[in-house]
Order: sequence, then C-alpha cells, then structure tokens
Amino acid sequence: MAILFHWGDAILEYWHRAFEAAGCGTDIRTFDAPGNHADVEFAVVWAPPAGGLKAFPNLKYIFSIGAGVTHITLDPEWPSQVPIVRLQDRHLVLDMSCHIIHWVLHFHRFYARYARQQAANQWLRHRYPENSERRVSILGLGQTGQDACIRLRDLEFPVTGWARTPKSIEGVRCLAGDAALDAVVSGADILVNLLPLTESTANILNASIFDRMPEGSFVINCGRGSSINDSDLLAALDSGRIEAAALDVFREEPLPKDSPFWRHPAVSVTPHSAAPTNERSAAEFIAAQIRLGMDGGTPAPIVDLERGY
Amino acid sequence: MAILFHWGDAILEYWHRAFEAAGCGTDIRTFDAPGNHADVEFAVVWAPPAGGLKAFPNLKYIFSIGAGVTHITLDPEWPSQVPIVRLQDRHLVLDMSCHIIHWVLHFHRFYARYARQQAANQWLRHRYPENSERRVSILGLGQTGQDACIRLRDLEFPVTGWARTPKSIEGVRCLAGDAALDAVVSGADILVNLLPLTESTANILNASIFDRMPEGSFVINCGRGSSINDSDLLAALDSGRIEAAALDVFREEPLPKDSPFWRHPAVSVTPHSAAPTNERSAAEFIAAQIRLGMDGGTPAPIVDLERGY
Repeated sequence: MAILFHWGDAILEYWHRAFEAAGCGTDIRTFDAPGNHADVEFAVVWAPPAGGLKAFPNLKYIFSIGAGVTHITLDPEWPSQVPIVRLQDRHLVLDMSCHIIHWVLHFHRFYARYARQQAANQWLRHRYPENSERRVSILGLGQTGQDACIRLRDLEFPVTGWARTPKSIEGVRCLAGDAALDAVVSGADILVNLLPLTESTANILNASIFDRMPEGSFVINCGRGSSINDSDLLAALDSGRIEAAALDVFREEPLPKDSPFWRHPAVSVTPHSAAPTNERSAAEFIAAQIRLGMDGGTPAPIVDLERGY
Repeated sequence: MAILFHWGDAILEYWHRAFEAAGCGTDIRTFDAPGNHADVEFAVVWAPPAGGLKAFPNLKYIFSIGAGVTHITLDPEWPSQVPIVRLQDRHLVLDMSCHIIHWVLHFHRFYARYARQQAANQWLRHRYPENSERRVSILGLGQTGQDACIRLRDLEFPVTGWARTPKSIEGVRCLAGDAALDAVVSGADILVNLLPLTESTANILNASIFDRMPEGSFVINCGRGSSINDSDLLAALDSGRIEAAALDVFREEPLPKDSPFWRHPAVSVTPHSAAPTNERSAAEFIAAQIRLGMDGGTPAPIVDLERGY
C-alpha cells in the first residue's frame, strides 16, 4: 500500500509525520516518482496535473487538500468512479468565520471611509445603524456558513441563511431553494457568498440579484469566483447600488494583472486567503481518514458529485 | 424642577421625547437660555463650557453623555460636590467590542498588508498563526473590557485582561495591579487599551512598555489618547517593534492637521468613533435615572472620582 501525495506548497514534514503517526506507513509517492502505479491506494492532492490520477488503477479514495473539489474534477479524465473525500477542519471553519466577521464589521462600521479620510487628514464621524438594524444574508449553510451565521447572530446582527435544502439554526432566519432567493437578497444590507461551485451556482450573483439588493449594500465573496458575474458586479459598484465588495476568490487565480478588481476603489482584493488549509490539522485529519480506509471503514465526508460538494 | 441639557450634536427630539415619556417633565434649559438657575436640579451634558455648571446652585446630579467624565472634570470650576452619573449603555459595550474585534482580526489576518499589495497588483498569501497562538491583552476590565475579553475568547484567542483590582472572567487570564503589567504586555501580540484616564494611567503606554512587547506586535487604543506617549509609540512603530496601531482617541481631538499619526503608514486613525453614544438608548437610560432621582432614589452608576471612573 502506498499513498500518492501532490501539493506544491506543502511542508512535507507535517504530512510524513502525520501519516506515520496514524499508522499509514511511510511509502509516499509523487507524480514525478510514482513507482509501481498499482501500489497506490490513496491519493492526497491539491490541483493534480490533468490526466495524472487516471494512471493509478487501484485508487480507493482521493483526498482533497481543501474544502472544494473542483481542483480535481476539472480534469476531464479524472477517475470519477473513485470517491473524493474533502477536507473537514475546524480551523478552516473558524478562519472563514473570522474573515467574514472582519469584513462585515469593516463595512458595517465604515472603516474604509475612515481610511480614505485619513489620507485627506479629515476628522469626520459617520453614523451607522445599530447591529440589530444591519441585515446580513449568508448564501451557503455548510459547516462554515452555519458557524458564520451563529457568530454574527451573537454580535446581534439579524442573519438570514440560504441553502439548497432546508436547514434550521436557532436565532437565524433560514430559507431554502430558488424561490426564496429573492427575499434573501432584497433584505441583504451585507451579502456573503459561501456557495460551492456547481452548475446552479455559477454566475448566481448577477445583475438581477444586485438590482434587488438595497441601495448602498455590500458584497463579500469567499465561496467561489465563478459564482459572481464580474462585469455585473463592477456595474453595480459603479452605480453605487453596491457600496463596496470584499473579494477573496476569482474566476482566474492568481487574479490577472489586468483585472479591473485590482484598481477599483470600492473593491478589496485578498489572495484566496480567507481560510487557507492549516497543514498541521489537515495532515492529521487526512491521515486519520486514510487509516480508517485501510481498516475497511469509510472515510468521510465523501463528496456527492450530483450536488457538487 | 428643570433639566439643563447641553450637547451640540444632539438630535433634541430623542431627548425631549425620552424625558417626557419617563415623567421628567418638559422644562429643558440650555446654557444660552438657563432661565432661573435655581430651578435646575439635573444637568445632562457633553463637554459643558468651562465655568458653566457652577452657576446652578441646586444641581443634584450631573449626567455625562458618554462613558468618560473628563469632559466635565477638566473644568477647574466644576461643582465637584455634585455626583456625576456616567452613561451605561449596552449598545456602547457592543459597539466597542465590535471595534476591538475588527482591529484584532484586521491585524491578526494581515488585511493591511493585503491592501498595500492590492495597490501593487500583488497576489501573495501570508501565513498567520492560529487564533490560539495569537495572544491578546486587554487593559481595563470595566463592562466593555469584560465583554471584549469574552468575545475574543470565544474566537479562540488566548486573552489576558488587566485591571487595577482583581477580576475573574471564565477562560480569560485576569491579572491585576502594577506588578502584573510586565507579564501582560510582554505576552501581548495584540495590546488593547481601554483604560479610563486617571493620574496613574496617563502615559502608561510608553517606551518601557513598547520595548517589552513582542517584536512585530500591534496596539489598539480605544481608551483615552493621553494614556499613550505619542512620540514613544511613533518610535516603536518606526523601529518595527510595533508593526501597526489602530488609534481611535488622541490627546487633542479632532486630531490636529499636523499630527504625524495622519500620515504614518502603520497607523490607522479613526475619529473617536469606536463607541459613539447611541442617542436613542442614551436618552432612555438618562431619563430613567433622572426619574429615579426625582423619586428620591439614587441614579447609577455614580463615578468614583478617586478612581476616576
């Protein structure tokens, strides 16, 4: 039994140590040095080379080093009969919530205005609504979306959560399905996107959505870049319908040098840093799941490819 | 019985409505139109003119429209035999916590670096410690300090609180007294000042404190401007000992045009906006306390002038 490992940025020491500690052995292969392909039963990957995974005939599970899986499934030749296990990590959830809380407070309390004023030596206070009057809507109620809802609720923001299927979170208005989307966005002073990328979420945030949001509202995207129609967002920012946006994910990453997002005064760009994989805990999680698979159990959570997450 | 009211920025409607609703009558005087000075039993003020309050011989209580009271006691002629009641308002506590959480997350997650990178079209992720590895120390454990401690603890930061007298907050390391200050600042990756201004807190944050903080740490001041030695802070920022500071309060406000804080690249200036008085709830709180005083009760909380808060 061998493990295929592929992630350019990895601190390999964490991974080797975690695999060994969990009893997964020390036979770790790479695409460059795969050895006998038939030995490899588990692949642990971030953005494997196209056509790479299909060369391993005995793969039992593919582990994604990240919550998303499109970095695997965009390969048209990926072995789609092999279950993908995605990363579940409490650090990832906390980090994402912290990113969202930061930007909600940043917009709510007008810190971007104060930064502009500072550049002009201007001392001017802006009145802001009470937290209880600033409505936040979160699209996507997976583990991270739920945690963000609860933490924002505890800061006394009125929170609406939206998901494909009905959910229930105490103190949070939870709505589900396409028919409810209108109510979710028309009542969103701050709209947070955490949706995974699927056929039904591509370009879901477009002009028809922005037009229904309140004048002077805010957008935070830390789901997937392709969920936003870029030119529609730019138009909504230019018209003032959307006062500002914090974007962490983009259609193409790194964000191309000529993207208008870099220079737009109402856009804050972060380099897909909202919830980077915490290597130490990711290595421990995946090693434990591999060990479970070696013992005949079923690693979790396995991605439902119909839903896309 | 009449009420003296003085606050330049007030929305008078809130106040008149609150006084009337609480049964405090409708006889509201101002320094410009005081009528018979002897009628006035309660003064509700923000930054009254020097020598103004002493003209009212029958004052029973002075109500501060704010948590601080130096805007009253800096007047050398203020009638110091009259108890001052300071504002207590849950919105004020929540707003201050939100300000602190925003800047803690801002520094912890390096958002200022990303803003600089955006100006240079640079896509570069920075590794950051886990929340559990970023130590936050809060100076001042009044109502706001305690709330901030608890909320930062819930975000899994290791929090140390420091106060003049011993306090106890679950999950927070609470230290007290001058002898403990060294331990508080030497373990502060992020130092938050919420201390009131007293003789012992003036210039409390000076070179000897900054020298003991960890290299590359952060300072958030939302207590009083005079608690910081400005030139010592500037030196610590220039040496890199302190990576950045978020300053909301200053020795002189509005911050003078020629202050180096305006232009320093590592300083974020906000215009004393961390927890502005929420007029609606402040008016309701003070009206209720006046009514209590009219009925022979004792309004609260009365400021202990020895302690200074």
